Amino acid sequence: MTKVKVGVVGYGTIGKRVADAVLLQDDMELVGITVNSYNYKIKAANKKGINIFAMRGMRDKDHLNYGIDSVCGHVEDLIEQSEIIVDCTPKNIGSENKCWYEKRGVKAIFQGGEKEDIGVSFVSQCNYSDACGADFIRVVSCNTTGLCRTLSALDNSFDIHQAHATLIRRAADPWDIYHGPINALVPHLAVPSHHGPDVRTVMPHLEVFTTSVSVPTTLMHVHSVVVDLGVNVTVDQVANLFKDTTRVRMVYNSDGIRSTAEILEYAKDLGRDRGDMPEVCVWKETIGVWKNKLMYVQAIHQESDVIPENIDAIRAACNICDQTESILKTNKSLGIS
Amino acid sequence: MTKVKVGVVGYGTIGKRVADAVLLQDDMELVGITVNSYNYKIKAANKKGINIFAMRGMRDKDHLNYGIDSVCGHVEDLIEQSEIIVDCTPKNIGSENKCWYEKRGVKAIFQGGEKEDIGVSFVSQCNYSDACGADFIRVVSCNTTGLCRTLSALDNSFDIHQAHATLIRRAADPWDIYHGPINALVPHLAVPSHHGPDVRTVMPHLEVFTTSVSVPTTLMHVHSVVVDLGVNVTVDQVANLFKDTTRVRMVYNSDGIRSTAEILEYAKDLGRDRGDMPEVCVWKETIGVWKNKLMYVQAIHQESDVIPENIDAIRAACNICDQTESILKTNKSLGIS
Amino acid sequence: MTKVKVGVVGYGTIGKRVADAVLLQDDMELVGITVNSYNYKIKAANKKGINIFAMRGMRDKDHLNYGIDSVCGHVEDLIEQSEIIVDCTPKNIGSENKCWYEKRGVKAIFQGGEKEDIGVSFVSQCNYSDACGADFIRVVSCNTTGLCRTLSALDNSFDIHQAHATLIRRAADPWDIYHGPINALVPHLAVPSHHGPDVRTVMPHLEVFTTSVSVPTTLMHVHSVVVDLGVNVTVDQVANLFKDTTRVRMVYNSDGIRSTAEILEYAKDLGRDRGDMPEVCVWKETIGVWKNKLMYVQAIHQESDVIPENIDAIRAACNICDQTESILKTNKSLGIS
Amino acid sequence: MTKVKVGVVGYGTIGKRVADAVLLQDDMELVGITVNSYNYKIKAANKKGINIFAMRGMRDKDHLNYGIDSVCGHVEDLIEQSEIIVDCTPKNIGSENKCWYEKRGVKAIFQGGEKEDIGVSFVSQCNYSDACGADFIRVVSCNTTGLCRTLSALDNSFDIHQAHATLIRRAADPWDIYHGPINALVPHLAVPSHHGPDVRTVMPHLEVFTTSVSVPTTLMHVHSVVVDLGVNVTVDQVANLFKDTTRVRMVYNSDGIRSTAEILEYAKDLGRDRGDMPEVCVWKETIGVWKNKLMYVQAIHQESDVIPENIDAIRAACNICDQTESILKTNKSLGIS
Repeated sequence: MTKVKVGVVGYGTIGKRVADAVLLQDDMELVGITVNSYNYKIKAANKKGINIFAMRGMRDKDHLNYGIDSVCGHVEDLIEQSEIIVDCTPKNIGSENKCWYEKRGVKAIFQGGEKEDIGVSFVSQCNYSDACGADFIRVVSCNTTGLCRTLSALDNSFDIHQAHATLIRRAADPWDIYHGPINALVPHLAVPSHHGPDVRTVMPHLEVFTTSVSVPTTLMHVHSVVVDLGVNVTVDQVANLFKDTTRVRMVYNSDGIRSTAEILEYAKDLGRDRGDMPEVCVWKETIGVWKNKLMYVQAIHQESDVIPENIDAIRAACNICDQTESILKTNKSLGIS
Repeated sequence: MTKVKVGVVGYGTIGKRVADAVLLQDDMELVGITVNSYNYKIKAANKKGINIFAMRGMRDKDHLNYGIDSVCGHVEDLIEQSEIIVDCTPKNIGSENKCWYEKRGVKAIFQGGEKEDIGVSFVSQCNYSDACGADFIRVVSCNTTGLCRTLSALDNSFDIHQAHATLIRRAADPWDIYHGPINALVPHLAVPSHHGPDVRTVMPHLEVFTTSVSVPTTLMHVHSVVVDLGVNVTVDQVANLFKDTTRVRMVYNSDGIRSTAEILEYAKDLGRDRGDMPEVCVWKETIGVWKNKLMYVQAIHQESDVIPENIDAIRAACNICDQTESILKTNKSLGIS
Repeated sequence: MTKVKVGVVGYGTIGKRVADAVLLQDDMELVGITVNSYNYKIKAANKKGINIFAMRGMRDKDHLNYGIDSVCGHVEDLIEQSEIIVDCTPKNIGSENKCWYEKRGVKAIFQGGEKEDIGVSFVSQCNYSDACGADFIRVVSCNTTGLCRTLSALDNSFDIHQAHATLIRRAADPWDIYHGPINALVPHLAVPSHHGPDVRTVMPHLEVFTTSVSVPTTLMHVHSVVVDLGVNVTVDQVANLFKDTTRVRMVYNSDGIRSTAEILEYAKDLGRDRGDMPEVCVWKETIGVWKNKLMYVQAIHQESDVIPENIDAIRAACNICDQTESILKTNKSLGIS
Repeated sequence: MTKVKVGVVGYGTIGKRVADAVLLQDDMELVGITVNSYNYKIKAANKKGINIFAMRGMRDKDHLNYGIDSVCGHVEDLIEQSEIIVDCTPKNIGSENKCWYEKRGVKAIFQGGEKEDIGVSFVSQCNYSDACGADFIRVVSCNTTGLCRTLSALDNSFDIHQAHATLIRRAADPWDIYHGPINALVPHLAVPSHHGPDVRTVMPHLEVFTTSVSVPTTLMHVHSVVVDLGVNVTVDQVANLFKDTTRVRMVYNSDGIRSTAEILEYAKDLGRDRGDMPEVCVWKETIGVWKNKLMYVQAIHQESDVIPENIDAIRAACNICDQTESILKTNKSLGIS
């Protein structure tokens, strides 16, 4: 089997996970990653044998100070050698990079921080086929991805009239020591927040609103979701639906999983790489029904839940296989279900 | 004017604030407080000249070790000398104390941790008249009080069909160093949570559901409220309604109030005693309307928002004056509106 | 008695407290404060009747949008009308402002963020007389002030050979929602940290070193101090010394004060304005002696411990009275000892 | 090679890591683990194929509710089938279990929560030979182990006169949602704290004192260490010494490692199991020297730093090999240096 040559531009929280995931695929080859400053992340990548391409403007010998014997060229070389780029740069940088990729005729996957019009907004289990053959795909944000997974399952089975989610957001990633708050709750002072419209870039017909509040934790986001359904359902029907939905994991008080902390401890116990939990986790005990109103609470691992989407998006863009096959391959390689 | 003689049993977060508030009323006299162990709170009360009554079983001279010259007797003496007791003991202790008050024929106000049947559930601006002359009143919890204030205003003006609130709960009070979580989100693993039914002890006709998540902060609870209204409203109508509602305060991004931390900093700047903010605070910028759905975000100062209710409940129980007069007197004494 | 006319430039954490403290002095008059943007702090100042002077460049009618009827002129007017300015602007702005004060012949008090050469470094109980009549005084930082208070007492009584302090720093003030870390410990990556040398700007002969680590809390700094003394001492000798030292407060496990949180709760219970604790607090139970080594742990309220120093510095600069009288007056007005 | 049969009693933070580490050793066989209640940890162990032994009193079929097909017997069976037990039960339970092991003639390794007299206190690189052939060994606590590693290196090379460490303790493990504080600093109200004497159980001649403060973080402890040395040293001498010391890792600001959070992110990037960092990490930039005083700051991963010690202790107790060989084998298997 020929392998798709994949380059990763931007090597932070998402970029490093995408690179590791590409290495696990039998139909992909990781050409390399870019570096714009040397640090522990690049050192670790080098130890894994990942090829490093320097941004223009870096001094030719900087890498030697970091115990890195050689770099493989500049970022332009990476783009030349790749068939598709996964751009994991910070918000708005991807948009600036797009013309670069266009000029060189390379396909690209962007992240959810970019504007909607940069490419096809994408969640694997919702609209994979919309992205087949696309030159530019936008993997939507961690929160949007998480909402799409459970809401699309509900909408397919039970017909959603309206939905509202309160997003209780982790204020900073675990490694991020610069952002607060340390001891305060910070509502997003616009309502509805942008997350609702963002869900509609994937599921355009859905009436969904969101309220967002940042809180002093680093581990996961939590969503309190309330859905007005078109049919009456039981708690068990919803629980069974979620159990049968890919990349949704039911978690249980009876297993001692009472918090986001215990979800991630479980991921570590399972031997997950970096202790990641790419599945959206729904607590069984939080599913409640009143007349046609359904409530549930889900947790989103912001660092990893879009990684499967990035891998699937590569396959969709390159027309490697169909949705079902791609999701199965990705899930198997990452040990998720 | 004769003053009602008030005793405070239980001198923690609520008890010490009730005692201070009683001291500010011209129609009440603070007989004293109870102590079951000496600590900085009792030392401070003694410096304020508040009479101290010891629980049975304490050694007669313990107070001397804490620089307290004398105690005024035992808790039974406090009850004998009082016309009404505000019981601010921890959850379930109030219920045990009730027979004590009954036996001695003294009225009592209990807190929201007690079960519903202990007395008339009470929020001043909702059902003051229900409690007039009652022997036993239950001031509902901080969260329930906060929900009742805004929901009753909305229901009176716009007719609520259904309401849902996600309660983002401060996990511990500022002084409480024992409880976590330090870095996790902890959903309440029952849905709907008990807060919805608790609102109905005050507003029995209201269809209200709640989801609750504890988060690592000590300052205030935040509620994300979504209401299905019977009529179409505008953001300005709702904002004006809340501005005209007692014990509801509108806060603004344009004033630099973006978080619970800045609300409490403002309370300190205003010279509030203990830096308290008994009013429910609604962020103007979080009020949003979509068709008949109304969304808003409010913050609740768990330590102080029920203090006005405790004072009003004393007046209701003792038939001192009517709702309007009591609310005005209490507000004026506490510097709130 | 004629009153010294005091202007406050910069109205943040320190500025607003200095202004409130000036209002409490019988030998000072608060001319007013400056504003460079309107927010809740300015609204609260206006409610207290404090005169407001606008920075140049603000639009003439901005204040009306914030419910403020009138401003008293520009910052130049404030300086003209004042005999002494307390400059509470952020780090390095004070230095820029200095020439402004020089040009207008007004004395000024600066804060500890400014460089050492801006004026006489000052801690009331250490070197008041050094600052008498000075045009420019620098009240050293909260941490330095706290170290000077206890170390000077020890040095006067017992002769310090060397001292080391580990500063466990609150990473952000309570109102500051922007700075982290949320869940990490962040050592200051230079050793010794700058706090040691800063102590020597006040006590030049002292061999003192410091290590600093930022931690996710907002309430107070904590210092773990280890001192090599020239004489043998007992725990009681040290405890008695600290008890007799102004602006040092002994706190006790037996009073239930086990943490920085309980110190500030006690301050609230005492009715302190804004819940402040300007005294350095030493836990009695942390005083330990081994041979000639003394250990103790103290807590510093970063928002308020330099306020008494700012007030005393005004008196020193203006030659109003001597050290003993000024400290007594300031203490009495602030309710500290 | 015959393999030592190892049983693990107590399957929490330490127990599960010891079990995983035993599985990586070519001279050990994991007989199994004990369970006293089913939860996600046991589910994950079962997925790894680890044998499970139930505590007496558990119902015979409980495991079936957790998707576990069979258990291998009771805890007594585990002890019978093992040559050595690693007891990882909570504080004081190990002491209760000891007679159990004595009666059955099985050796045992205990953790640092147990009292000193339970067995030979042990840190691999300090006193391995003291424990050779011992029936009962006590692996000292995470903090003591970390202090012993760097202090023993310094003492061997430079002769320590006295040492003091301020322990800035993570207040709870990452999975522990029950313990606070959320926003306070909590000094250990006894001085010196027990950690100093505990170091002397391994290095009896060392004059070491400790002060301990709990802070609201879950990731790692941080030690601020100050050492009075018998000789003059340079920063580079100390840095080179630490670089050459096993299980001590130098970390660098220039690598972007400025906090405990970034240390653990680096561990994840390196592919460490559970993202662990068993090495004590010393920041190069925090090493400072003044005359004969040496200062440095180190970080301790409380969940994993004693795991190598537990493995080495098994080899020492069973006389499998000498110190050098055991440390090398353990290091290699865990990917540390």
